[in-house]
Amino acid sequence: MLPDTIKWLKNPPREPSEAMRQAAMQHQRHLAKPFGALGTLEELAASFAAWQDSKRPNLERICQRIYVGDHGVIDEGVSAFNQQTTSEMLGNAANGRSPISILSEINGMDVSLVCMGTANPLDALANVIDLAIAPGTSNFCREPAMSDEVLAACIEAGREYGAAEDCQLLVAGEMGVGNTASASAICSAALTLPVEQSVGRGSGIDDSRFEQKQKAVRAALDKHRTKCRNPLGVLQHLGGLEIAALMAAYIDAAQRGIPSLVDGFVSSAAALLACQLNPPVRDWLIFSHISQEPGHQHILTKLDARPLLNLGLRLGEATGAAASIPIIRSALALHNGLARFSTQPA
Amino acid sequence: MLPDTIKWLKNPPREPSEAMRQAAMQHQRHLAKPFGALGTLEELAASFAAWQDSKRPNLERICQRIYVGDHGVIDEGVSAFNQQTTSEMLGNAANGRSPISILSEINGMDVSLVCMGTANPLDALANVIDLAIAPGTSNFCREPAMSDEVLAACIEAGREYGAAEDCQLLVAGEMGVGNTASASAICSAALTLPVEQSVGRGSGIDDSRFEQKQKAVRAALDKHRTKCRNPLGVLQHLGGLEIAALMAAYIDAAQRGIPSLVDGFVSSAAALLACQLNPPVRDWLIFSHISQEPGHQHILTKLDARPLLNLGLRLGEATGAAASIPIIRSALALHNGLARFSTQPA
Repeated sequence: MLPDTIKWLKNPPREPSEAMRQAAMQHQRHLAKPFGALGTLEELAASFAAWQDSKRPNLERICQRIYVGDHGVIDEGVSAFNQQTTSEMLGNAANGRSPISILSEINGMDVSLVCMGTANPLDALANVIDLAIAPGTSNFCREPAMSDEVLAACIEAGREYGAAEDCQLLVAGEMGVGNTASASAICSAALTLPVEQSVGRGSGIDDSRFEQKQKAVRAALDKHRTKCRNPLGVLQHLGGLEIAALMAAYIDAAQRGIPSLVDGFVSSAAALLACQLNPPVRDWLIFSHISQEPGHQHILTKLDARPLLNLGLRLGEATGAAASIPIIRSALALHNGLARFSTQPA
Repeated sequence: MLPDTIKWLKNPPREPSEAMRQAAMQHQRHLAKPFGALGTLEELAASFAAWQDSKRPNLERICQRIYVGDHGVIDEGVSAFNQQTTSEMLGNAANGRSPISILSEINGMDVSLVCMGTANPLDALANVIDLAIAPGTSNFCREPAMSDEVLAACIEAGREYGAAEDCQLLVAGEMGVGNTASASAICSAALTLPVEQSVGRGSGIDDSRFEQKQKAVRAALDKHRTKCRNPLGVLQHLGGLEIAALMAAYIDAAQRGIPSLVDGFVSSAAALLACQLNPPVRDWLIFSHISQEPGHQHILTKLDARPLLNLGLRLGEATGAAASIPIIRSALALHNGLARFSTQPA
């Protein structure tokens, strides 16, 4: 039984229009190119047609959200960085000098940072929503990552600060030193995978830290095994504040008929939980890229997802999602702009 | 011995600046992200640094060329389309309604069509350079695809109408019904591959045409075997007018210190011949995508190339190259715009 405040997570998503998907595919058959020759670009256009219930879908209004949270498991030596780095990354993003701020600018998106909670208090920054729900998660090797109250607050924040009212795509991502450890734990718990298949080197840790990371994830899985028999149990015991918000944002967007562009490994772990909790949410997700983290492929396989890009990224911050936006724009421009075979341009 | 007029093909390319590549990688180490976390995007930026001999490379001037040519092997029933379609595709591109014209527009490139020769005479079109070197190639199942004179003229055209004087990237591609048959024959001859590994379904042909295509390529390989012991022999006997121009354009660009963005299977066959004829040309090539054609992976493997995109495209026209330009732009924007760790933004 879910607590009343988060029962909405199980409400059914909108249904994409299968009729309009078929109409869009039919339209593609008449365009001045062999049918299927644009591969994934044709499928993308048909998906947007189904989502927007329009034969000529467009992408004019993108909503970006980067959820930020610190991780208590950092105490186990799982990262080369410390929690101060999370705040520094957030500051760089707010000041327009981080990877996501640069990719947002060239793709015409506003940076939107939603800070769920960091170990170090934040300076007030103009374009940061500072929720301060908790000073990061607890160290999940010792106790559940989140209390009931913190979990519920993060889920509610993911809904409240989720996809904007009139947007056509949610581009969501995360920041948080240590969060690949959390995503690996979620991946192993949710897919029943040994840690060797879910734990990677995150920001590029050395062998010694890599061993500590595997050990920490294994310890957490052992400690919380009996509490991890459902997606919310996994999230509460092994997750992150920002992962809870992401999961909620994906579900909320699907319920409101807004597709989400999923970023890398950590975002995909949140998407996995969203789909396990509410399977039709899957129909509203596009997967932007495959990262270097070994667990990512397992999640993508489980969700039958073929990501748009494979550029060896391992950064998070929605950078892979942002880098893939031009692919979507190309797909829609082709769908709407191509000549039909053997007819004169209108 | 090469004829005098095309001896320039063997002249050495410029050497990319290895020192500047190292300086660019060093710069990447200090940026506000873990080193290597941007994967291929970091490598791309370093390559442009080496090509432009600049620590802060940019991409402001792109030159696009689409070479067009008809193929005599169409007589063997290898395509579902006929040679009239080549002219129709060219007309659509000239009128801004083809896939490449749409992708060019959203990427800020001018469409530039260089017609080497089609079976049907072209209407005069404003933005088409109509060279009319020959009415397509000869049917290579019966005779060499090109005479000495036609081959030399196509190679010269690839140089004359190659990368523009001051451009920073050549985006070259091709159009020509039947040209995947030619590319497959080149792939098999140049890599000593059985036709089963090089021949695909091109624009999407049915089983019967697919068998005819395999048979035609096999016959051509048998007929010209003794003449295909070097790249120019392969090109002359199995190639296309547009493939000869592409090969020459890649080599000429490399000699002038201009990198080329290679498109799909047909373009990669031209790039393969360029590299076999003049191996250091390889240092100036970026491979944009992997197509659905089975021979493409063999060429990419031979050239040790990891393409930027895998979107299941099989269209040609430089569409895959155009779709990948935003990836390059993202790489350079990140390289030049990111904050450095633990310093204030300037």
